[in-house]
Amino acid sequence: MPIQIGILGLGTVGTGVVKILQQNAEAIQTRTHCEINIKGILDRDLHREREVSGDFILTDQPEKILQDPEIDIIVEVMGGIEPARTFILEAFQHGKHVVTANKDLLALHGHELLDAADKAGKELHFEASVGGGIPIIATLKESLVANRITALIGIINGTTNYILTAMADQGRDYAEVLAEAQQLGYAEADPSSDVDGLDAARKLAILSSIAFNSRVALNDVFVEGISRITREDLAYAAELGCTIKLLAIAKHQEEGIEVRVHPAILPLTHPLASVNGVYNAIFVIGDAVGETMYYGRGAGSLPTGSAIVSDVMRIVNNIQANSTSPSNCTCYLELPLKAASDFHTAFYIRLLVKDEPRVLATLALLFAEANISFASIIQKPRGHHQAEIVLVTHPCREGSLQEALDSVKAYSKVLTIQNVIRFESGQGENP
Amino acid sequence: MPIQIGILGLGTVGTGVVKILQQNAEAIQTRTHCEINIKGILDRDLHREREVSGDFILTDQPEKILQDPEIDIIVEVMGGIEPARTFILEAFQHGKHVVTANKDLLALHGHELLDAADKAGKELHFEASVGGGIPIIATLKESLVANRITALIGIINGTTNYILTAMADQGRDYAEVLAEAQQLGYAEADPSSDVDGLDAARKLAILSSIAFNSRVALNDVFVEGISRITREDLAYAAELGCTIKLLAIAKHQEEGIEVRVHPAILPLTHPLASVNGVYNAIFVIGDAVGETMYYGRGAGSLPTGSAIVSDVMRIVNNIQANSTSPSNCTCYLELPLKAASDFHTAFYIRLLVKDEPRVLATLALLFAEANISFASIIQKPRGHHQAEIVLVTHPCREGSLQEALDSVKAYSKVLTIQNVIRFESGQGENP
Repeated sequence: MPIQIGILGLGTVGTGVVKILQQNAEAIQTRTHCEINIKGILDRDLHREREVSGDFILTDQPEKILQDPEIDIIVEVMGGIEPARTFILEAFQHGKHVVTANKDLLALHGHELLDAADKAGKELHFEASVGGGIPIIATLKESLVANRITALIGIINGTTNYILTAMADQGRDYAEVLAEAQQLGYAEADPSSDVDGLDAARKLAILSSIAFNSRVALNDVFVEGISRITREDLAYAAELGCTIKLLAIAKHQEEGIEVRVHPAILPLTHPLASVNGVYNAIFVIGDAVGETMYYGRGAGSLPTGSAIVSDVMRIVNNIQANSTSPSNCTCYLELPLKAASDFHTAFYIRLLVKDEPRVLATLALLFAEANISFASIIQKPRGHHQAEIVLVTHPCREGSLQEALDSVKAYSKVLTIQNVIRFESGQGENP
Repeated sequence: MPIQIGILGLGTVGTGVVKILQQNAEAIQTRTHCEINIKGILDRDLHREREVSGDFILTDQPEKILQDPEIDIIVEVMGGIEPARTFILEAFQHGKHVVTANKDLLALHGHELLDAADKAGKELHFEASVGGGIPIIATLKESLVANRITALIGIINGTTNYILTAMADQGRDYAEVLAEAQQLGYAEADPSSDVDGLDAARKLAILSSIAFNSRVALNDVFVEGISRITREDLAYAAELGCTIKLLAIAKHQEEGIEVRVHPAILPLTHPLASVNGVYNAIFVIGDAVGETMYYGRGAGSLPTGSAIVSDVMRIVNNIQANSTSPSNCTCYLELPLKAASDFHTAFYIRLLVKDEPRVLATLALLFAEANISFASIIQKPRGHHQAEIVLVTHPCREGSLQEALDSVKAYSKVLTIQNVIRFESGQGENP
């Protein structure tokens, strides 16, 4: 008896799922000892042209999929919050397992969906929601389950990594590279969800909830985007033996957990520094396993489809093994969340100042008053009796840095604070 | 009711397992909803000092562990072929699940052990046998299961990677770095299993069997070690924008599968090129997921223990879910194995020749007779009317290359063939 699945949505990802199930049908059947058949696909527009065809029902009526008693597994790849949320809840009510790639939905309503799955005694899998085909969810939930995860640092947004890589490699400006990325289809017409860090924040909420067994909501994530990064910042970073990446950082420390997405200056020697273009990677530190990293394409029809079909096969295996009582929700703890002012990092501060005596000395004093000292300083003449100064601080509290910056802003010899960027050593410890 | 485990062996890895089970006991219990208790440990010498202690029976009588009806899971971390093989078979006979880190045993007797597990309806897990704590086995078996794996390229021996990294970074000689690695404990007193490539070959036999669903025995793996690599080769590799790594390569091509372990010249831009020191990484290409990579410490007490305890927790979850009929053996196919003479790679050939006119032209003719052409050539004077020539061929059949080398050897102007090293583009395709 084949196991029947229903697919909600036939966009890029849904098409990838169908292609993989069709092209690798033989291998999939051999590996699961079972035929997996697509019984129906929900598609809003039944008349457009499609890349795939097959012996399945194409319908615009969700109940035909959700209420079909023969369908065991629902694959939700329509995206968006509603009606995806309602459909998934209905699927559980009708006794179906669910696989979804919907990060937006999970970051907002993951709790509700996991609870509904547990209540129904059905499985909810979502490997495809973060990092495309990179198996980061299974790794955190199963392969590293013996560890206390102390840090997770990810490059989990392909658009921003493409932009920063091109800016770094080619010395180009943000706006120019963004426009090119939009032309190439690597960035959307409205790129804000990517470049403002929101997409990465959603994924980080999902990853850190699993890594720390404690619910992290989207609102818990501190977020800063990449639009203020200039080619000058990337040139200075290179001078410091570093590069700039949009990092999604989650750390479990004694005082609690901190979760933040922001551009960060990262040493070139760190494995994440050579993750370029649209590739994603997640660096995970566990107390037993030490430093590990998982790398691959973070998006795309087939990579995302790979994760979805693997999740489907996992459910098929469990159905065949008569496995009971799945445990979907793994947030057993309620760990305190650190405030942004308590983050502890080193900072890069780029200032345009009047090129006069004693300016640097005064700056050093202003920072010293907030208990902040410098690890290195670069100063360059900028003409018109102006100089550009890059200050690299030793690690300090974010709150203290903000105080110091207030004094710096008020100092008449400072013309502009051009940028402030956090450092990340990538070592799991505060640097 | 706690689930009871028995551990065979209390060396480095066994100690790591005990430490993790003790230190992370609370997290482990929360995550499995179950207490995991070490009931007994088999140790040959009951009187030596140990790093760990606890409320377990320490015994030198295997039957006290293997025949204890309370014990559900046996962890085999004694290493070696016998008596480990017999103990594992006995464990299945007594209805126990088994977790092992024993790559030597699996590479030789994996088939027998997996069959015994299937017959007993028990689980056999061995994530720790390859890549320490890197979750490569679970990734191949589960997370990438929707894919047809086309290529797997690994740095899976820490000793050789430490040696080659130090040689490349510091321009030092093989013998000197090996001696240092032995002093630091990164290489054994008899380093042959590592430096001759056998350890990597064992791991590759395990990985490729899983990746291709077709049994690959140790004898099927073509093996060449690193002892002939010199600092000169590394310097030329750098000149070519490359480095040299001991790679474990498995490819699935139309004609069959090829599995080989040998030093290879790899472009510096490839993600594996920056895997340095004792770190391991496995680069996996799947038809759907594309290029992925898994990185971490390939050995050590706690990283290996992380994989073992995670495997134990996986079994505990399955016991609690009443999951039946595990499927351990995944070698459903019998794919043909390519002969070494049919390998298709580019080659680096370093020759010491008489510095006379027409030598290069004659060499080009000798290679052309075997249908081999050059992609690049480096020639340097070596004094005494001698020159060193490095020929980089276009990709060619290994058999043709051997024919050409026979003619080159017979050519009177060639004084020595100093080294021949394969290239690996790391792209999955033949370069």
